Amino acid sequence: MTTAPPPAATPVTVATGGDPPGWTTLPGGGVTSAAGFAAAATTAGLKASGSPDMAVILATGAAPATAAAVLTQTVVRAAPVDLCAAHLAASGGAARAVVVNSGQANACTGAGGAADAAAMAAAVAAAAACEPAEVLVASTGVIGKRVDMGKYAAAVPGLVAAATPDGGATAARAILTTDLVEKTACVTGTVGGKAVTVGGMAKGSGMIHPNMATMLGFVTTDAAVEPAAWAALVAAAADASFNAITVDGDTSTNDSLVGLASGAAGNAPVADAASADGRALAAAVTAVCVRLAKAIARDGEGATVLLEVSVTGAATDADARAVARAVAGSSLTKAAVYGRDPNWGRIAAAAGRAGVAFDPARLGVALGGVPLMVGGTPVPYDEAAVSGYMAAAAASTAYLGQGGEDTVRLDVALGGGAGAGVAWGCDLTYKYVEINAEYTT
Amino acid sequence: MTTAPPPAATPVTVATGGDPPGWTTLPGGGVTSAAGFAAAATTAGLKASGSPDMAVILATGAAPATAAAVLTQTVVRAAPVDLCAAHLAASGGAARAVVVNSGQANACTGAGGAADAAAMAAAVAAAAACEPAEVLVASTGVIGKRVDMGKYAAAVPGLVAAATPDGGATAARAILTTDLVEKTACVTGTVGGKAVTVGGMAKGSGMIHPNMATMLGFVTTDAAVEPAAWAALVAAAADASFNAITVDGDTSTNDSLVGLASGAAGNAPVADAASADGRALAAAVTAVCVRLAKAIARDGEGATVLLEVSVTGAATDADARAVARAVAGSSLTKAAVYGRDPNWGRIAAAAGRAGVAFDPARLGVALGGVPLMVGGTPVPYDEAAVSGYMAAAAASTAYLGQGGEDTVRLDVALGGGAGAGVAWGCDLTYKYVEINAEYTT
Repeated sequence: MTTAPPPAATPVTVATGGDPPGWTTLPGGGVTSAAGFAAAATTAGLKASGSPDMAVILATGAAPATAAAVLTQTVVRAAPVDLCAAHLAASGGAARAVVVNSGQANACTGAGGAADAAAMAAAVAAAAACEPAEVLVASTGVIGKRVDMGKYAAAVPGLVAAATPDGGATAARAILTTDLVEKTACVTGTVGGKAVTVGGMAKGSGMIHPNMATMLGFVTTDAAVEPAAWAALVAAAADASFNAITVDGDTSTNDSLVGLASGAAGNAPVADAASADGRALAAAVTAVCVRLAKAIARDGEGATVLLEVSVTGAATDADARAVARAVAGSSLTKAAVYGRDPNWGRIAAAAGRAGVAFDPARLGVALGGVPLMVGGTPVPYDEAAVSGYMAAAAASTAYLGQGGEDTVRLDVALGGGAGAGVAWGCDLTYKYVEINAEYTT
Repeated sequence: MTTAPPPAATPVTVATGGDPPGWTTLPGGGVTSAAGFAAAATTAGLKASGSPDMAVILATGAAPATAAAVLTQTVVRAAPVDLCAAHLAASGGAARAVVVNSGQANACTGAGGAADAAAMAAAVAAAAACEPAEVLVASTGVIGKRVDMGKYAAAVPGLVAAATPDGGATAARAILTTDLVEKTACVTGTVGGKAVTVGGMAKGSGMIHPNMATMLGFVTTDAAVEPAAWAALVAAAADASFNAITVDGDTSTNDSLVGLASGAAGNAPVADAASADGRALAAAVTAVCVRLAKAIARDGEGATVLLEVSVTGAATDADARAVARAVAGSSLTKAAVYGRDPNWGRIAAAAGRAGVAFDPARLGVALGGVPLMVGGTPVPYDEAAVSGYMAAAAASTAYLGQGGEDTVRLDVALGGGAGAGVAWGCDLTYKYVEINAEYTT
């Protein structure tokens, strides 16, 4: 028990996807903005809707791209995820192509689904004149349904032949399922004195419509980087971005982040993620991943706002991120945000159950910059103003506004160490229940 | 990868709160059905609604009752929870009284709240002529608000004086907040050749209305049992019951289960929870806790059905329970149940992310006894029949029907070891969002 009031914890801001030092946003840039990549999309007929449903990214240089992936941690892993793990191991982290289909996730499809994934890679390898182990495969859509391999295989030659350096935008559209918007990001800067571009695309808006699944992310760069350093760098970026978002807590069978580095920039290959060049590249890859991840959270099913939870004062960054995720993922907090209710009690309770030790008598909570709780106890605040802040975010038409126009920001200060972290989510709305309760066959 | 279809896993039934061998339900029984206990309730004026808001349980024998508690694991712990931990340590597991108020949770109230909790215990100790350390305190209601100690203290003498052996029902009503129904359970049997009764009461229906919190459970028995054995037995019962329910994943600041054993039955004191007598008593305490826990899940905010998830084929019972909790707590699964959608894909995906290793190629899922998935892949089933099963459960008027009339049952077979476990939850409905988004000050 605390017998004297402790000093108030002071919420502070931490970085959340702005341009890193030395890097500049390339508006409209995406997965083919970096030199050495081409992409295309097509409509193979895998979706009942008739929307584009296949995309390919090709590494067009003399050598394959350095490749790494972060794959779903779930036990029930889709066939293309198993294939990516096997191909990356076999190739030693090299890839010529990534092929993606939407419509069917090829999850829970048994040995037949595994054979389908292998056939997909083989078809692309034949068309791209490379080894099957140099092809990575991703799928998203209905779980438990086999892909129509006749249509798939028929579409591959034309898809590969159509790949161009300006195909990123069409590829970003073809990988969507129930997403409302395309998700791309790109920054340019320098690594080792050479001009470098990092771009990417993603899809995901929850574990989505009945039997639909998946977050997919693809990041490309023209920087030259060794496989081990690239793998470390992509994994760290995923931790700070895709692993820091939550729409409904439901991990999918297909979640994958694939990173490709072409080396076309001509820099001395980055051999150590912790070197100066490695850190510069990591900052850019992380910024691109954070933007894509925020776009997924903002596009969460039924969401009216992006929820950004910043935590400071933890013993470690990992502890801070765990608390941020617990708050961003709390159904009660999410529903309170939808109700425009500055419910600090729910925020404090969610922080407390994150499995992270802290002194509750030093806990501080602020919403939209307004302190609601200081030193573990509530403080007076203008409820109408804080509620109005949330209502204004929901009413904003600046979708993913760079000024935070459609963001509800929560700051949680634990009052302990120097660890800081951020997580993103969205509010829990009637629409979420409607989307996910809708009976679909 | 699996190349040949594995044998189908077979879902089986596990015990879920029925009468244990040798024990019989006492209809209408509760927290004063066991010999040696009295209870009362009153309206102190702590709730704006004017509903009953204080209850007391007294141990009326010559000696204090043997006492144990399982307390919330959250870091942000309410003052009465800290007090219970301190008093149980000071008394060596002995208690004369438990006093409960609804209306304010006395959480996030700082040093003043801690002093209030101590004053509550002191007031009851004075009225009951015992030591303050022999009084346990529980509170539930709004977080961050101080209790009106003038009203509280004024009510204590009359409350304690009014306690009678038939006061269990009124006490069960006074501890409610947003609960729709009172929650009591009781069984009778024998321990060490003596007639023994185990009864209890609980409250909770989610982490509830804005700023409301808490699951509270109280179990009493007239069996004689040593403090260490009683503590072990109550903790095991909590694991199989209150720790196996989930409404929204939000742990509260005040969650507490308190167990009191009066010894009035006159059996040779149970010194070992693993002895024959210990196991007999444990079965009864667990059954009472499971019934109370199921009642809380069924009363989950906005729920239309009780969701019961049984998992078999895990390496350990703990693994099975973890998978069951992941499925019962999945927003997507809960929304699908509300949509009467037999969405085995979501169930399989939730099982896969529970952090428990299993062979996905052996996974089986059944809903209402109808296999949806066998050997890791979907099987044909009558969708209208399975959907109709869920709709019938929601339409049932047999609230907590003993025949499972209002229960949607999911069986998940992992196809591995002998570990089995159960978890309970409810569906995710528009009403849940409405309740929790409602702006309240």
